[in-house]
Amino acid sequence: MYANARNALEERNIAERTFRSCAFMGFLLAAIDLLVLYLAIILFKLYYGNDWEGLFEAITGYVLGGSFMALFKRVSGGIYAKAADACVHLVREIEQNCPQTERNPAVISNYVGDIVGEIAGMGPDLFGSYTESSCVALVLASISSFGIEHNFTAMCYPLLISSMGILVSLITTVWGEIKPASKTEKYIISTILMTVGIVVVSLIALPSSFTIYNIGLPKVVKNWQLSLCVGVGLWAGHVSGFANKNYTNIYFSCLQDGAAHNFRSGLQAAPQNVNVALGSVSIPFLAAVSIFVSYRFAGTYGIAVAALGMLSPIATRLAIDASGPIGDNAEGIAMMASIGAPEDADNTTAAIGKEFAIESAALVSIALLGAFVNRPAMSSSVDVLTPKVIVGLIMGSWLPYCFSAMTMGSVGRAGFKMALEVREQLLRFGPEHIGVHEKPNYARCFEIATEASFRGTIGPCALVMLTPLIIGTAFSVEMLSGLLAGSVGSVVQIAMSASKTDGAWIQAKEDIKAGALEYAKKHCRGEPTLLRIAESGKTIGDPRKDTSGPPLHILIQLMAVESLVLAPFFATHGGLLFKFL
Amino acid sequence: MYANARNALEERNIAERTFRSCAFMGFLLAAIDLLVLYLAIILFKLYYGNDWEGLFEAITGYVLGGSFMALFKRVSGGIYAKAADACVHLVREIEQNCPQTERNPAVISNYVGDIVGEIAGMGPDLFGSYTESSCVALVLASISSFGIEHNFTAMCYPLLISSMGILVSLITTVWGEIKPASKTEKYIISTILMTVGIVVVSLIALPSSFTIYNIGLPKVVKNWQLSLCVGVGLWAGHVSGFANKNYTNIYFSCLQDGAAHNFRSGLQAAPQNVNVALGSVSIPFLAAVSIFVSYRFAGTYGIAVAALGMLSPIATRLAIDASGPIGDNAEGIAMMASIGAPEDADNTTAAIGKEFAIESAALVSIALLGAFVNRPAMSSSVDVLTPKVIVGLIMGSWLPYCFSAMTMGSVGRAGFKMALEVREQLLRFGPEHIGVHEKPNYARCFEIATEASFRGTIGPCALVMLTPLIIGTAFSVEMLSGLLAGSVGSVVQIAMSASKTDGAWIQAKEDIKAGALEYAKKHCRGEPTLLRIAESGKTIGDPRKDTSGPPLHILIQLMAVESLVLAPFFATHGGLLFKFL
Repeated sequence: MYANARNALEERNIAERTFRSCAFMGFLLAAIDLLVLYLAIILFKLYYGNDWEGLFEAITGYVLGGSFMALFKRVSGGIYAKAADACVHLVREIEQNCPQTERNPAVISNYVGDIVGEIAGMGPDLFGSYTESSCVALVLASISSFGIEHNFTAMCYPLLISSMGILVSLITTVWGEIKPASKTEKYIISTILMTVGIVVVSLIALPSSFTIYNIGLPKVVKNWQLSLCVGVGLWAGHVSGFANKNYTNIYFSCLQDGAAHNFRSGLQAAPQNVNVALGSVSIPFLAAVSIFVSYRFAGTYGIAVAALGMLSPIATRLAIDASGPIGDNAEGIAMMASIGAPEDADNTTAAIGKEFAIESAALVSIALLGAFVNRPAMSSSVDVLTPKVIVGLIMGSWLPYCFSAMTMGSVGRAGFKMALEVREQLLRFGPEHIGVHEKPNYARCFEIATEASFRGTIGPCALVMLTPLIIGTAFSVEMLSGLLAGSVGSVVQIAMSASKTDGAWIQAKEDIKAGALEYAKKHCRGEPTLLRIAESGKTIGDPRKDTSGPPLHILIQLMAVESLVLAPFFATHGGLLFKFL
Repeated sequence: MYANARNALEERNIAERTFRSCAFMGFLLAAIDLLVLYLAIILFKLYYGNDWEGLFEAITGYVLGGSFMALFKRVSGGIYAKAADACVHLVREIEQNCPQTERNPAVISNYVGDIVGEIAGMGPDLFGSYTESSCVALVLASISSFGIEHNFTAMCYPLLISSMGILVSLITTVWGEIKPASKTEKYIISTILMTVGIVVVSLIALPSSFTIYNIGLPKVVKNWQLSLCVGVGLWAGHVSGFANKNYTNIYFSCLQDGAAHNFRSGLQAAPQNVNVALGSVSIPFLAAVSIFVSYRFAGTYGIAVAALGMLSPIATRLAIDASGPIGDNAEGIAMMASIGAPEDADNTTAAIGKEFAIESAALVSIALLGAFVNRPAMSSSVDVLTPKVIVGLIMGSWLPYCFSAMTMGSVGRAGFKMALEVREQLLRFGPEHIGVHEKPNYARCFEIATEASFRGTIGPCALVMLTPLIIGTAFSVEMLSGLLAGSVGSVVQIAMSASKTDGAWIQAKEDIKAGALEYAKKHCRGEPTLLRIAESGKTIGDPRKDTSGPPLHILIQLMAVESLVLAPFFATHGGLLFKFL
């Protein structure tokens, strides 16, 4: 009894410590981002002086670099993580003389890979979303009445919102230290505090009424309206994360209920899986609502600040998000070292972070598209019924599929290469000696994963970077606008479905295993098909969820930022092919 | 040697006879379609007199009914087919005492299901596309200079193109009778003849220059330009079918080469599969090109006639398409009757038909969208940067996912219900008697499949029929336009990927089985993972390919036709919710 209580206390301590270190990462990320952005503005101001439009164009260039890094890290991290994972699975199932998992030479790359993919990838990713939404808001503000009247405080409204976000997260964390609170409580506290913070910042920093230029037309906005835009973004992010968590949990518990009892629920699980998961993409509705409301009040600027509102309590959200995979990993490593660790892994939180990133990416991309179309010398309408736009739209819907295919292919190739290496080591050391008398060559597996992850990044990154350039230069900005719009619609769905379907597949596998094996022992020959389906669901689902899904939203952001940066170039040199036709 | 030669001759005969009967079905379809459409015009003319706009509005209503039937049949056929299929697989793998496939009570439903799904579904589907493209061209023509000048011959240009298609297919079939030609040869001959036919019809039926009203603006079109539009559609359909066939074949042969030799290629097949399949969605480019060219010359009317051009040699194409599944089926039935049949099944041709249907659906839907926006009292622009349109776009991208989830769920439930029935029969008759001394209750399985297929159709059909109505009435026509555009982009990709990915999965399974089992016997314990992955790839892929994929393009067509029919209603009563906001 006493031991149990102590254990529970220790578990709680570990969870708290993980959370604290993750929150620190979040603070660092938000603080560095703000600092660098502020310094960049100050520095560029020395050169540009009062030309604020030029200044923020230059800032966009800086953001482009950051986004590219985010894409690169997400893709390479994802490939690294899942290559090792695929290899471990393949070796375990195919090699006849494979030793226990712990003695498998690829196993350490697997653990490292999880962290590389989930944490090292997510940091730059959210960093990118954060700087992009700040930047697009600044660019749009520079051509509004703030920019014209040189109201520096109002101009910096996006940065002030982010600063308030840091403050709120700090208060939440300190609160959590004084009065122990669950993750959900922290989540709710941060959102409520942030709502107050938004109102305060809006009242202090903004004039009571100002003019935004929305796609060429002036629009008068009141300060409370703008605070409403930010608030809508914040709460949409909140609700979607929350809804998803509950949704996933309810589904899991239904499944477990059934699986334990009988064959029926197990059978139904496979199609229902897909059903639930595909159906759950209804969460984009929240993004749609926030787009609609914020646009109605403050045009594309409103969408940009809504994205910022969604991202503002980043430190708290990141902490909630990251503690899942870190706990998961710690458990694995502890098992390897035969220490035994608390089963604290909670994979549903990581899913929250993904949704949140996708939703904010959709908002940011639409705001960026708005800023792009808003540029002088652009045709300021993206009419789906003009052929260039509709062609762009169809091609834009296709891009994320192509991107996914490339990343999935890389994982497959890398996993296979590692599997060959592991087999070679098994033959060299002998399956009964490896990891007992002989130390497996872990380093070689690292090398393979690293090399594959860098090599596999070239194609997808080139696709993302070159497409806007080629379309804009050879074809036209209208086609490019259509491409951006089409890819936003497509990415939101594919990324959501990748994160949900496959998450559900993986969980279903676990649950079915429990229930179906029971049944199988009594009635079936061999392993039941069902489990087989469920297992390979995981094998397909894993790289979809962790490699091809997460970078997808960076794809749309990056293409939109690039188009914005290249807009002046397209305006003078674009549409080459149509000039000769 | 002699026996072999005779066998080959017989095989050829069977193939020819299948082809001929399929061609007959195609002729019937095209002829009935034309006849009914023509009769409807004549009949409605009695009432509408010279009000051609009203006349063609009424015709659209008639087409709506046809499209709804197509959706209904495709969905119910798909569910019927795959429920029986899933049941047969599940029973074979899970039940301990399951007899040979031939004695399984569900096996006849399975064979019937294939025909119900592939043939009975495809007929109304192509019929729908055919009438819709004719109809949208007629509606657009009614507001062009043809309609104003009451030039009935020019007005009937779409019908004349279709008639020419019947003639060309007839010539091709007769040619094939006189001088034996392969499917590919027939395919090429029909396209070349049709090209000539288009030029002839255009020169005779059309005035040398006429005016089209494209989204409110007049556009002068020459007759050779319009024939170019039709030709582009025809050739885009030709090339895509052809490219796909070759592409698939090349991929298959690569895979077979490898699989026979070693473990490596087998391992790589699973990810490469997905890779190739996802990558191959590049075929939408052809649709994009034909949209672009035809729009440039003759606006939305050009797109409509391009779709018509694509569909014109329907009799020949349908014959090529349908002979695959029919051959497949005949083989199965012959096997059941222990006759032994030629292995003539060629699953790649069915894939051609699907692509062809998707591509033409994309064209038809865009033309319908154009006609919808073109209506008086509609805002004649669908600007992605207005919030209503972008919200519609995101929701439109989501619809096909929801639709797929519904149909997949129905298949799962029906398959399970049948599996329970089969088990019950096994227990009642005894596994060793069933199909030997006791006749299995085949009829009960039919009943279950039929009931499930009808019940499963309600949800998806309601989704498709109600969405435009609700969005248009409660929200706005702008949002509805966005929804239509978004769903077109999304459907093209999802449908292509469903048809390709899963086709490739299925074929890969066969190939891997051959190669990997060899390897497995030597090196592995149990069944290799790879084969397991490949097998369940088929289990997931089958309903995606045959149930949720094929009706998707009807979804976009039907929603667009419905919007067009309801346009006058929306114009006066639409956007209720925004009136109170």
